[in-house]
Amino acid sequence: MTDPRFYSPVGPLALGRLAEIAAAALAPGADPRRMFRDVAPLHLAGAEEVSFLDNRRYRAALEASRAGACVLHPDLASAAPAGMMLLLSDHPYRAYALIARAFHAPSAPKPGVAASAVIAAAAALGPDCEVGPGAVIESAAAVGARTVIGANVWIGPGVVIGEDCRIGANATLSHCLVGDRVVIHRGVCIGEDGFGFATSREGHLPVPQLGRVIIGDDVDIGANTTIDRGSGPDTVIGPGCRIDNLVQIGHNVVLGRGCVVVAQVGISGSTKVGDFVMLGGQVGIAGHLSIGDGARVAAKSGVSKDVPPGTTVSGYPAFPVKEHWRQVATLARLAKRETKGD
Amino acid sequence: MTDPRFYSPVGPLALGRLAEIAAAALAPGADPRRMFRDVAPLHLAGAEEVSFLDNRRYRAALEASRAGACVLHPDLASAAPAGMMLLLSDHPYRAYALIARAFHAPSAPKPGVAASAVIAAAAALGPDCEVGPGAVIESAAAVGARTVIGANVWIGPGVVIGEDCRIGANATLSHCLVGDRVVIHRGVCIGEDGFGFATSREGHLPVPQLGRVIIGDDVDIGANTTIDRGSGPDTVIGPGCRIDNLVQIGHNVVLGRGCVVVAQVGISGSTKVGDFVMLGGQVGIAGHLSIGDGARVAAKSGVSKDVPPGTTVSGYPAFPVKEHWRQVATLARLAKRETKGD
Amino acid sequence: MTDPRFYSPVGPLALGRLAEIAAAALAPGADPRRMFRDVAPLHLAGAEEVSFLDNRRYRAALEASRAGACVLHPDLASAAPAGMMLLLSDHPYRAYALIARAFHAPSAPKPGVAASAVIAAAAALGPDCEVGPGAVIESAAAVGARTVIGANVWIGPGVVIGEDCRIGANATLSHCLVGDRVVIHRGVCIGEDGFGFATSREGHLPVPQLGRVIIGDDVDIGANTTIDRGSGPDTVIGPGCRIDNLVQIGHNVVLGRGCVVVAQVGISGSTKVGDFVMLGGQVGIAGHLSIGDGARVAAKSGVSKDVPPGTTVSGYPAFPVKEHWRQVATLARLAKRETKGD
Repeated sequence: MTDPRFYSPVGPLALGRLAEIAAAALAPGADPRRMFRDVAPLHLAGAEEVSFLDNRRYRAALEASRAGACVLHPDLASAAPAGMMLLLSDHPYRAYALIARAFHAPSAPKPGVAASAVIAAAAALGPDCEVGPGAVIESAAAVGARTVIGANVWIGPGVVIGEDCRIGANATLSHCLVGDRVVIHRGVCIGEDGFGFATSREGHLPVPQLGRVIIGDDVDIGANTTIDRGSGPDTVIGPGCRIDNLVQIGHNVVLGRGCVVVAQVGISGSTKVGDFVMLGGQVGIAGHLSIGDGARVAAKSGVSKDVPPGTTVSGYPAFPVKEHWRQVATLARLAKRETKGD
Repeated sequence: MTDPRFYSPVGPLALGRLAEIAAAALAPGADPRRMFRDVAPLHLAGAEEVSFLDNRRYRAALEASRAGACVLHPDLASAAPAGMMLLLSDHPYRAYALIARAFHAPSAPKPGVAASAVIAAAAALGPDCEVGPGAVIESAAAVGARTVIGANVWIGPGVVIGEDCRIGANATLSHCLVGDRVVIHRGVCIGEDGFGFATSREGHLPVPQLGRVIIGDDVDIGANTTIDRGSGPDTVIGPGCRIDNLVQIGHNVVLGRGCVVVAQVGISGSTKVGDFVMLGGQVGIAGHLSIGDGARVAAKSGVSKDVPPGTTVSGYPAFPVKEHWRQVATLARLAKRETKGD
Repeated sequence: MTDPRFYSPVGPLALGRLAEIAAAALAPGADPRRMFRDVAPLHLAGAEEVSFLDNRRYRAALEASRAGACVLHPDLASAAPAGMMLLLSDHPYRAYALIARAFHAPSAPKPGVAASAVIAAAAALGPDCEVGPGAVIESAAAVGARTVIGANVWIGPGVVIGEDCRIGANATLSHCLVGDRVVIHRGVCIGEDGFGFATSREGHLPVPQLGRVIIGDDVDIGANTTIDRGSGPDTVIGPGCRIDNLVQIGHNVVLGRGCVVVAQVGISGSTKVGDFVMLGGQVGIAGHLSIGDGARVAAKSGVSKDVPPGTTVSGYPAFPVKEHWRQVATLARLAKRETKGD
């Protein structure tokens, strides 16, 4: 059961309804009228909860689980304990997500502006926005309908935020245009100066950073991530991108649609990333590169050259993934041989 | 002498008392009645200050120091200048820490709630709490006795914080239960959504993140670090863990007791870390792994496999530390040979 | 044209004046009386805008550009479209910077203290400071003339900030002395406890951190970066250093003059970095090392030994850059040979 201090599942919901929501099939023995109260992980779920199995390495947890129902792939159905009702899906994680969302819809905004928020006269708030205590919205900023601005957020002059967005506490936004249904988590910093200066004997002369950050619809940006504005061109985050915590995105970077950027990645200035690219945790990408559509970069890789579309690279410096692992194996073997020869 | 703008040492304190506090032995010539006013590093300390030597590479600084007294290992006593009073300890850094703490006790909270703090009616504050300007404590949150909440902190609904904690300015906490004597530094973000979504042709469907962050007693969490809440299971930080700045801890990660996590480490989702594990700076650990009790991971390593208890690993990808360094040496030799052969 | 929601160029300005400002030469055909309204990148600039070309890989953009004028190196003048007025400079990026700064001077502070700012009675504000909503300035802090303190910033007791500084929203500063013309971007955390504790069987005993952070004139510190105060000695950032986003600087680190530290770098405690050192993105440097004047460390390198002045190192662990790339090439060749031999 989810902790009632933090979560309030709706329901109960009937198993048949959950199967519909999840586009899952009920296995024999699953009673569509049986009511469930919540979702829970396999090792915590009880008789009134729905769980899921997505990763085969947790099969033992399935066998030991007391969950009343479980979403899983048909191939794993035989491992379930007797009496557990099964929801079969070829995409069990997605099916679980739909069920969990049925119990736990995102909370609606509580329209209103906190007394301690400071909103410039020339700022425009759409209907049903929620603005938390201490939030500051500067002149000529515009916030779309039903968007939630958290406590102590700072929205700079002229910023435009779309509808149904959520801006987490202590985030700061400037020089940006944000689409609809964008989630910006706490402590995020968007639109700061890029790292631009002209170095000479007299030192580092700051170059005015005159672009913006353009954020598409349905983007999600993790806590304490920083996205600098363009230097003249814009920094662009395509629709549907998911960016994790503590990521750094430099000026003029362009991300295509639906990219996944795991925590602590750094993308240097002016690099273009295609659609549906996956960047593993702590990846670093040099500036002025092109990462093709559908490319994948393994965690902690250092990318210093263009990556062709659809390829996977790995290593520091990054190579095609098979080459990288062959290099790792080769070096391990050679080191062992040298030792034996000593 | 510490800068009086920032520090106010109590005292003076007698050398004999300091030796007691530090469980150190006075070397011949050290006068237990001699009074000292503060601690200071070797190169800055004067006649009324106590210094320490813990790292042999700073031996020259000892020889040149004018400190009135010094804590050090008996083996190094012969390097001290004539007239310096010596406190001998097999654990000189710990002995110094105890003396420094005698001069500089953590400041007591100044009980009271700033006028601009916003505390929900249904939140509960224990006795003698200090709440800074602009702090926001949401409904049903509970804060234990003598806990200090810094300026512009945001505490989400239902959060529970223990006694004698310190939450630094601009930190944000949600969906978490925090033990006693926990220090959360400035800008930390605890309890945000984990990076969970189900990817399909229709895009990345967010999966509700329904767990918590459980933080044990005596934990210390560095500035701008992010710790995501569990997806269903909890994210757990064991008692006594020390986490540095800009660390990322993913959903469902479990840290055992007394782990040390240096700056900019990233731990991916669902990885289990045992007790007293040491992770060097910028280490990355993949998801769903097990890092055994007492394991050590060298700085900047990339861990892609389980690490057995008590072992040390290094490298990217990580290998047992001796293997890694042998690989480094082997490759350096081979590259030189190839060059000569050219 | 820059987005009028965010930028207000002064002007128009005559080409001859711009050439003077930039110390650039007008190529034949460039009319010094021609007026320009703004700067813009090559692919966006129109007839009334000045652009620049600094990187040869964007030569095609020059050929296709409709910019009315362009700053570039004389060697590239022949690639410019007919009719484009050219400003010739051996340092075109610097020349462009000077022109961009002529159109876009840093905005002057708007003197005044927001109603919701909280300033201790014993704090001292110089003339013409701007203090944003929700900012907190604690007792005995001093802020120099014309310095701008952003929204929800926290300035701890005793902190000294010089003249003409800009402290971004939600930054927090304690235990520090800051020079003149320093820019501290949003979310930065300066002066927190260093990562110091004495470990024994009883656990990790915190060691009081009793130093400061000393920041020289003309330093620029990127968003969400963390700089810990010294443990007894000070942490020092030399004049003119430029530090990017999400950088971690440990206690007692010393940076010389004019260093460039790219995003996500981590510098461990007590390392000394000389003057005009360049550290690429995601570099990690171990503690207690010495990095010589003018040294360069390639992106993502892991430095575990001293780096001599004027040298460039690369790799993990870092080697002199040529050795590192020879190692990379050698390993790639050996891995291919082994494969063929299989």
